[in-house]
Amino acid sequence: MPTIDLNSDLGESFAAWKMGDDQAMLDIVSSANVACGFHAGDPVGILKTLRTAAERGVAVGAHVGYRDLAGFGRRNMDPSSEELVGDVIYQIGALQGLATAAGTKVTYVKPHGALYNTIAFDKRQASDVITAIMSIDSDLVLMALAGSPLVEQARGAGVKVVAEAFADRAYTSDGQLLSRREAGALLTDTAQITERMICMVEDGFLPSIDGGKAQIDAQSICVHGDNPHAVDVARQLRAGLERAGLTIRSFV
Amino acid sequence: MPTIDLNSDLGESFAAWKMGDDQAMLDIVSSANVACGFHAGDPVGILKTLRTAAERGVAVGAHVGYRDLAGFGRRNMDPSSEELVGDVIYQIGALQGLATAAGTKVTYVKPHGALYNTIAFDKRQASDVITAIMSIDSDLVLMALAGSPLVEQARGAGVKVVAEAFADRAYTSDGQLLSRREAGALLTDTAQITERMICMVEDGFLPSIDGGKAQIDAQSICVHGDNPHAVDVARQLRAGLERAGLTIRSFV
Amino acid sequence: MPTIDLNSDLGESFAAWKMGDDQAMLDIVSSANVACGFHAGDPVGILKTLRTAAERGVAVGAHVGYRDLAGFGRRNMDPSSEELVGDVIYQIGALQGLATAAGTKVTYVKPHGALYNTIAFDKRQASDVITAIMSIDSDLVLMALAGSPLVEQARGAGVKVVAEAFADRAYTSDGQLLSRREAGALLTDTAQITERMICMVEDGFLPSIDGGKAQIDAQSICVHGDNPHAVDVARQLRAGLERAGLTIRSFV
Amino acid sequence: MPTIDLNSDLGESFAAWKMGDDQAMLDIVSSANVACGFHAGDPVGILKTLRTAAERGVAVGAHVGYRDLAGFGRRNMDPSSEELVGDVIYQIGALQGLATAAGTKVTYVKPHGALYNTIAFDKRQASDVITAIMSIDSDLVLMALAGSPLVEQARGAGVKVVAEAFADRAYTSDGQLLSRREAGALLTDTAQITERMICMVEDGFLPSIDGGKAQIDAQSICVHGDNPHAVDVARQLRAGLERAGLTIRSFV
Repeated sequence: MPTIDLNSDLGESFAAWKMGDDQAMLDIVSSANVACGFHAGDPVGILKTLRTAAERGVAVGAHVGYRDLAGFGRRNMDPSSEELVGDVIYQIGALQGLATAAGTKVTYVKPHGALYNTIAFDKRQASDVITAIMSIDSDLVLMALAGSPLVEQARGAGVKVVAEAFADRAYTSDGQLLSRREAGALLTDTAQITERMICMVEDGFLPSIDGGKAQIDAQSICVHGDNPHAVDVARQLRAGLERAGLTIRSFV
Repeated sequence: MPTIDLNSDLGESFAAWKMGDDQAMLDIVSSANVACGFHAGDPVGILKTLRTAAERGVAVGAHVGYRDLAGFGRRNMDPSSEELVGDVIYQIGALQGLATAAGTKVTYVKPHGALYNTIAFDKRQASDVITAIMSIDSDLVLMALAGSPLVEQARGAGVKVVAEAFADRAYTSDGQLLSRREAGALLTDTAQITERMICMVEDGFLPSIDGGKAQIDAQSICVHGDNPHAVDVARQLRAGLERAGLTIRSFV
Repeated sequence: MPTIDLNSDLGESFAAWKMGDDQAMLDIVSSANVACGFHAGDPVGILKTLRTAAERGVAVGAHVGYRDLAGFGRRNMDPSSEELVGDVIYQIGALQGLATAAGTKVTYVKPHGALYNTIAFDKRQASDVITAIMSIDSDLVLMALAGSPLVEQARGAGVKVVAEAFADRAYTSDGQLLSRREAGALLTDTAQITERMICMVEDGFLPSIDGGKAQIDAQSICVHGDNPHAVDVARQLRAGLERAGLTIRSFV
Repeated sequence: MPTIDLNSDLGESFAAWKMGDDQAMLDIVSSANVACGFHAGDPVGILKTLRTAAERGVAVGAHVGYRDLAGFGRRNMDPSSEELVGDVIYQIGALQGLATAAGTKVTYVKPHGALYNTIAFDKRQASDVITAIMSIDSDLVLMALAGSPLVEQARGAGVKVVAEAFADRAYTSDGQLLSRREAGALLTDTAQITERMICMVEDGFLPSIDGGKAQIDAQSICVHGDNPHAVDVARQLRAGLERAGLTIRSFV
């Protein structure tokens, strides 16, 4: 019986500022990408999220980002290789420490925001993230954009990779994300989202924006939880996947 | 043959700003208190210090501080217990990650600056630091001010403690540091500093400010390296201790 | 016809994190205490709040705080005098710059959180804030806790002071805020809140917690806007004050 | 008698970390580019530099940078237009406040590091900086790289511009800086540096790297002060310019 992982970005509150409903999302996802303090997250909030993840058996990943709290890690930056390697190790280590305290452990790494988008295609910064992972724990899995060059680059370097698809995004017929700037890039119909993901898991493709087929080799599906509507979409997607006979389970 | 540990605060450069001569100090000390990024230290500089510590067999401690880069961790703060516990775990974890990448490991924790001074006497914040240590790695040793209530509090909580004396500071006859505001609090004569430390290691006391004896039960001596003169004092102290037949060796 | 000022803390969003409903509150208050970036607020959000304040003729104050984003400025700190003076000038200047760009100006200063509470009684830090105000613009009014020693200290130093009362807080019979830790410290009944504030404006006192009279000499009333209920209480308070014939108007 | 301005980057210390010798440089330069806290500088250190600048009649510019303390503002970033406009206004305002307290005023703006290099050629970010300047004080002069498109872009937008040359850099025959990556890009011979700058001020050109003439229309010369040798070069350059009959004077 086929299985699929559901992941979401969590632990993104900071200080007095709340973001997302981690408690609700941890009932839905099998993997939690937990912020590490550079683009979001403070130790108190991260610990709370990790403790709930531990209780519910949700896998924990380090959601590492650029050191850019004011930009939520969404702005492109060009750190040197030694800076990026150091920053990624630092963040993974900090989350490992908090995970130990919460009774769980970090099993994968998913870069966030601008870093995620950059390393999907930029070999130099990708290499820095890979170096960081190999330096701290070579068993860590890298979660990467399905269809991006990063998948092969990381595997070639000896890093285990899980490729992910985005539930609410349109794809082109060559298996790439349609740019958010294009019409139709964002999907909002829950039934359609669910049907597409079932198709992808069972058959390895989903309908592309131009009416063709987008081959997507993904072992995880990213869902959002940053507003009540998003939580509801994620919940319905999970229910739909389960009704289709799929098991929601972490890849680790 | 008696042994004694020499420790110093290292890894305190930040970004474009350099502080101290870590390469020189790592030839002198047996234990390096390495900044963790909250009061000082960035991953690139910390990694460099850790790699040299690894090469030279110098023990590594997490020099955890308040989240106060603008105050270099020297300003009193009153974080809540959950904030302080979280911040200390986060910093230890981050340094553990960098230490792994550098081929070494964190074996002890020495709080920095205002946090150090506060927990020597403040039982609530001390308890928070102890909780953090027990949560992440109960084998971590806590380095604490010799003669302070923290020593017994931590031991009572099950944490191994190393007490430290300050080479360049005067003590009162009840074994307490003379306040920096008092005349004679800071010692500058290298020969005198060395003689006092030999006395302390061999006989368990040193001359107090009022001409009596200050009993000091210390397993480590703190030396400074933040300017060329300080490095020179530390180097001469080490040479003097060795001439007296003492072995400089980490406590771990 | 008597007038009274209504003030609220605004501009407290930071980066991706939203806080409060500034657009709603700027229809209710006559004075906006706008965060300056040290405890909360980023330039984009501050500018938006300032532009709306300018459009609606709401007075602008600099809501200066400790440099403690991770603690939202609510944690006690002990900056040196030169640090505190510098930090307050810096924040006021930054807000003045943004206010100029938004077509308005900063007319008063209200310290935030732990700094507010500290300077109400701590003469040294109060003196530092006063020095900062006098250094950058001696026409700036200081908004201070009614009944606190700060009111006289600042006036004695030549700074104009507006004293403020808190709409939703109980007072003791000597005109002091009842500690939040005491039962009954927080009021939630909108009618009661409104009645008390009308009494205070018209007669100079309100019912104290022990059934007596608390004399309160206040020219401004602080209301909150950090959740929809708080906005609603503030709106009803304003309506009630106006029904009682009072004019809501800034003190500048 | 021809005049020329000498400028240098000052106020770059942060917290416990010192950088440069501002007191020495303020005897040499006629214009001080003072850090504003985003890439470097804290209020205490900035105030000290501003007070000395005021005493010595040195003009003050806002050395605004990206919000990147960990990268010293040297890393490329892509803030949105509203972010960059806000950040620049905020920094100028903060420095204006500190300058008022120090008895001087901000008369120009010189972007720092990666922002400086970016806006020399990137019209979007350049436009944002121009918008910020026009929003806060349209009398502020923009100091820009001589020969860059920014000079005309800013003038076209109604901003006064002072173009600057770099004393210790080689130029190509089309008046552009030779990349630091090229051999010969950095000049170290003080006599040569001085001779070139005299030529540029008197005749409008200097020898280019390929033996031709680089036309440079500059009203200011940038010198460095971040190490004792740099201070010495700057001092000798000033002396040489004066011996040649040139007056060192700010452009404002």
